[in-house]
Amino acid sequence: MSGRGEIDRLVTLLGRLPGLGPRSARRAALALLRQPQARMLPLADALAQAAHAVRTCSQCGNLDTSDPCAICVDPSRDEGLVCVVENVGDLWALERAGVHRGVYQVLGGTLSALSGTGPDDLNVQPLLDRIAAGGVREVILALGATVEGATTMHWLHERLARFDVRISRVGQGVPVGGALDVLDDGTLAAAIMARRPA
Amino acid sequence: MSGRGEIDRLVTLLGRLPGLGPRSARRAALALLRQPQARMLPLADALAQAAHAVRTCSQCGNLDTSDPCAICVDPSRDEGLVCVVENVGDLWALERAGVHRGVYQVLGGTLSALSGTGPDDLNVQPLLDRIAAGGVREVILALGATVEGATTMHWLHERLARFDVRISRVGQGVPVGGALDVLDDGTLAAAIMARRPA
Repeated sequence: MSGRGEIDRLVTLLGRLPGLGPRSARRAALALLRQPQARMLPLADALAQAAHAVRTCSQCGNLDTSDPCAICVDPSRDEGLVCVVENVGDLWALERAGVHRGVYQVLGGTLSALSGTGPDDLNVQPLLDRIAAGGVREVILALGATVEGATTMHWLHERLARFDVRISRVGQGVPVGGALDVLDDGTLAAAIMARRPA
Repeated sequence: MSGRGEIDRLVTLLGRLPGLGPRSARRAALALLRQPQARMLPLADALAQAAHAVRTCSQCGNLDTSDPCAICVDPSRDEGLVCVVENVGDLWALERAGVHRGVYQVLGGTLSALSGTGPDDLNVQPLLDRIAAGGVREVILALGATVEGATTMHWLHERLARFDVRISRVGQGVPVGGALDVLDDGTLAAAIMARRPA
């Protein structure tokens, strides 16, 4: 169809977002096109502003409009307790849950032969520097319970062993609200091994 | 979380797109934030351009960068054959299939007491004008097989009856590639009633 280059381009770009296929990209484009002033221009504006304002925190790897990020400069956070996560999405999830009162280190990935991610690709030097400078009591390894996550935790454990710092990892088991009969064997085994007195 | 207003605003606006919930909006925002130059700014630009360039065709109701739209001015299309659809998404679907060589009339909705859409809310006057001016041989009612679609087709049929124009509606039956045992009773009944010699 000629004469609708703008629409096609919009549908193509929307369709590249994770979670949107060609079909939902067309639906999204139509919903936006019906309200250009109320919906399209604000979204265009938000994207442009975020693209210009948001940067990576040089200290922990978080995304924020300031560097160091709001978490790193927050005096109420415990700098002695560093939580290591794979990516910013994991950091956001922990912040939404409000369960970690320390600071973070975002690796930006996990060790993976498949995707070609090696030790040099992980953002771990700032953490080593912070530990070497003293003041870090504990490092929580909050990586996914995957082969890559386990490999990365093992590798981190070795690199941190020479420092006088406690190393812990997040607990594994039955998710809150989860029914046992739909869980995989690995999770059930982990839950049994991690059993506590009731 | 303070200091990340731009990110929150982006996630909120993305989450209002149909097909994206809060969770997928966060994933989409993160994917964009990782590539501000390569992904965010082009999308911002595409949205702004489309918002400014795209308008509603005063003749058929299609969305395009020109008015009348590319379909209405295309000399190769049969102006005597008008296909009535509910919305622009339906028009796009028919164009992708490439099954209609005539022009369109986009109603912008269907008659619905529930959503308060009455006859005055439907974009039908241009069609009546076109028919009155002569040159329209056939009107195809391509509305959804829903209560609202059927009501609207019935109402349109009454309004068009006084003109010397053929009125048809799209066939109903088993979708191509569809298995019979997963279809609802209504579709099966329609398929049996619409049977043809094999």
